[in-house]
Amino acid sequence: MKVAVNEQQLRAEIKKWKEEGLTIGLCPTMGFLHEGHASLMEASAASCDRTVASVFVNPTQFGPNEDLESYPRDFEADCRLLESKGVDLVFHPEPSDMYEDDFCTYVDVDVLSKTLCGESRPIHFRGVCTVITKFLNLVKPDRIFFGKKDAQQLAVVRRMVRDLNFDVEVVGCPIVREPDGLAKSSRNTYLNDKERQAALILYKSICLGIELVEAGERNSEVLKAGMLDKLAEEPMADVEYVEVVDGSSMQPVETFKEGDLVAMAVRIGTTRLIDNFTAGENDIKAG
Amino acid sequence: MKVAVNEQQLRAEIKKWKEEGLTIGLCPTMGFLHEGHASLMEASAASCDRTVASVFVNPTQFGPNEDLESYPRDFEADCRLLESKGVDLVFHPEPSDMYEDDFCTYVDVDVLSKTLCGESRPIHFRGVCTVITKFLNLVKPDRIFFGKKDAQQLAVVRRMVRDLNFDVEVVGCPIVREPDGLAKSSRNTYLNDKERQAALILYKSICLGIELVEAGERNSEVLKAGMLDKLAEEPMADVEYVEVVDGSSMQPVETFKEGDLVAMAVRIGTTRLIDNFTAGENDIKAG
Repeated sequence: MKVAVNEQQLRAEIKKWKEEGLTIGLCPTMGFLHEGHASLMEASAASCDRTVASVFVNPTQFGPNEDLESYPRDFEADCRLLESKGVDLVFHPEPSDMYEDDFCTYVDVDVLSKTLCGESRPIHFRGVCTVITKFLNLVKPDRIFFGKKDAQQLAVVRRMVRDLNFDVEVVGCPIVREPDGLAKSSRNTYLNDKERQAALILYKSICLGIELVEAGERNSEVLKAGMLDKLAEEPMADVEYVEVVDGSSMQPVETFKEGDLVAMAVRIGTTRLIDNFTAGENDIKAG
Repeated sequence: MKVAVNEQQLRAEIKKWKEEGLTIGLCPTMGFLHEGHASLMEASAASCDRTVASVFVNPTQFGPNEDLESYPRDFEADCRLLESKGVDLVFHPEPSDMYEDDFCTYVDVDVLSKTLCGESRPIHFRGVCTVITKFLNLVKPDRIFFGKKDAQQLAVVRRMVRDLNFDVEVVGCPIVREPDGLAKSSRNTYLNDKERQAALILYKSICLGIELVEAGERNSEVLKAGMLDKLAEEPMADVEYVEVVDGSSMQPVETFKEGDLVAMAVRIGTTRLIDNFTAGENDIKAG
């Protein structure tokens, strides 16, 4: 496995592979990798000749009061995992390699970026789209892989790729969960023991939502009310939102139907966690 | 010469050329082509194996009170010129092929887009960058060609390409002028005889600016004052701006130096015309 720390090194490898006619999969990550990330690498290795993973804590997707500085990092452990998953090339640039001092170009997906997580994180998806555009232009992958845990991110990137005619297939991979059901996230490391226990309430609320849907409930307000009641059982849970939205536009829907998404953001202490489920997908499963 | 009217037709041609290892030049235009455009095609044909020209009046770069509807169009005449210049493929999509009803993704170069023409045309460069991003992703050219008449557009696109890591060389081509010095522009067709005569004042002011620089003047305020005085000689000229700016950042400079730009926008009647010259380039010449 090779490591490229700047554009030049990265482009040299990509050029070689392109000349050989090899297909390339790209798995963008912020590092501190877990089994959720690993599933992206596996999906890429299974469907592409070469897999590139980026490990880059992207500053432009963090707001001024967010956890850019404290975001967990462990590049050596990441490399061990990436190598074991058959990744061929890791792109691990410095922020200064990605953003020159007078950097001033941004890619913004309107509408989809303004709801849900976008309400409390107004520049987040602009930063995501900007860095993903950069990665797409650097790596020129045939497929790019994202976890469905970040459902809004997946929808925003899909829309960006469609609107801007990027020649890449966007692949969403199922949420990977801890044995007790908590969705895997690098930010889970912020939780102390008590918070880790309390964080289970997201999974319980998601499970209740799925049960309601399986029992035939389709009214968004009823679904939301049930899930909010469940979340309210945990005193440490501070709910940011529970919403039922169209899976493509991220706009609220009154009636839950195929392709729609039920998404939530909840703070446990100072840690912001997200989770979701999609209509028609039975991929909810504790690890 | 082939004409592609949608993404599918375009991609099919591009794919073939890429597989053959041919280099591709792209000349984006809004049609109603003149010798200025022709010089882009010539530059592309001279340096690339294949040349693609787009003919597309891009709605997202026009403000609500601008001339989108009245912008001159003559696709048949354009095709004759393009064929004579060795263009291999014309991309001529409908607006609905480029922008779906729920299109909502934009590429914005901040700072550079806000000055000069950006002051009176606040969404113009966002529209330019968005459509150029789409073209770059569709055509995947090795080189993209722009006229230096639209100096700010050239600077904005250069910055976008750098910031977003597009793998393309941006080539600026010299301004082409009418025999009497007026910079070629599709919008010159809006001018009636009297206005056409009055429009010469832009060229005269540009020539005065160059003379002042050649005589050693470097003070931006003195340059501007001289050029504004010249423009004031024409009662039909309504000056929007004359500015001396850094050629890369488009920010005002006090002292004119290598690479800086003197740019102007002037209305003659209802027609908005632009012109400019760059320090260190002696390409000012009437046709």
